[in-house]
Amino acid sequence: MKRSLGARPLVFVTPTWIIGSYDQQGKPNMAAVAWGGICCSQPPCVAISLRKQTYSHQSIMTKKAFTVNVPSQRYVKEADYCGMFSGKTMDKFTKTGLTAVASDKVDAPYVEEFPLILECKVSHVVEIGLHTQFIGEIVDVKAEENVFNAKGVVDVELIKPVLFDPEARTYHGIGSFLGEGFSVGKTIDKP
Amino acid sequence: MKRSLGARPLVFVTPTWIIGSYDQQGKPNMAAVAWGGICCSQPPCVAISLRKQTYSHQSIMTKKAFTVNVPSQRYVKEADYCGMFSGKTMDKFTKTGLTAVASDKVDAPYVEEFPLILECKVSHVVEIGLHTQFIGEIVDVKAEENVFNAKGVVDVELIKPVLFDPEARTYHGIGSFLGEGFSVGKTIDKP
Repeated sequence: MKRSLGARPLVFVTPTWIIGSYDQQGKPNMAAVAWGGICCSQPPCVAISLRKQTYSHQSIMTKKAFTVNVPSQRYVKEADYCGMFSGKTMDKFTKTGLTAVASDKVDAPYVEEFPLILECKVSHVVEIGLHTQFIGEIVDVKAEENVFNAKGVVDVELIKPVLFDPEARTYHGIGSFLGEGFSVGKTIDKP
Repeated sequence: MKRSLGARPLVFVTPTWIIGSYDQQGKPNMAAVAWGGICCSQPPCVAISLRKQTYSHQSIMTKKAFTVNVPSQRYVKEADYCGMFSGKTMDKFTKTGLTAVASDKVDAPYVEEFPLILECKVSHVVEIGLHTQFIGEIVDVKAEENVFNAKGVVDVELIKPVLFDPEARTYHGIGSFLGEGFSVGKTIDKP
């Protein structure tokens, strides 16, 4: 039996991502987002949403570029910090001790300490309501050497990404392997 | 040191969701997606992306409605099955043994056996490339009675949602609690 909860932004799983951008003076900033996801395979694109009042919103509207930085779970405190304060009056890189690196391909900084980063150029801006959705074409993905497994593949178990639970407002790690995609379903009768 | 991987749709974490829709004849169908995320808090909206060639794309373009169904990990096989075959020539509900229930609020079916479902009306259609992004206003969320915890809150550890790893194409469960949001970051010096 299902209970109705009304209209609300509640779903699982949502990510914990840190969005890197430069402001109009070139100061690097970080914003925490849980509202986002991949939205196209070709060209590869990722969508993130920010409130209009945020400092990063203004920066991304100006620079038309951002990075998506995936923290490993050892950086959950730094990620949370980025979601608590505005970069308008502070330098979050200095405060957290994280390192801003200029991206190769886009006009935005990435977080050196995080294991996986996406460099993105804004391709669409969708005004939805409280949030603006920025769709970014992913022009490069960079991963730390130590998150490639023996097969040479970026391994989620080495990255140890962080989930955000939007209902309890808590962070979780990733759990155990459940099965191979395009494979475990084969145990159900084929058409 | 970071290694460049080029332009590709690679990020963590991405969800495993089953999208419910009716075709033009009113037949219920399910599609598996990993490309999606919440995109606005007010009005609450969720974005999902589908390739134009899919059967569900056509259905959602016609009905302007869909559901997001969050499988618990015991249904990973059924979820995977939904991603392997098209509903054009088969009834995936019959094949998987899952039950289609007509939504209260929108013209789309939801999956009775899954613990969390979102009923959505299409508010924006964004043509990006290979994928079309459908932004749905969430008009109702429904959760099974057994996923509310002692505090009366929908609990991610009771839902047991499934992550899809787009690089290895594998499924994972959720892991351990890492900290409270808007809280663990306070151990870093305040501004």
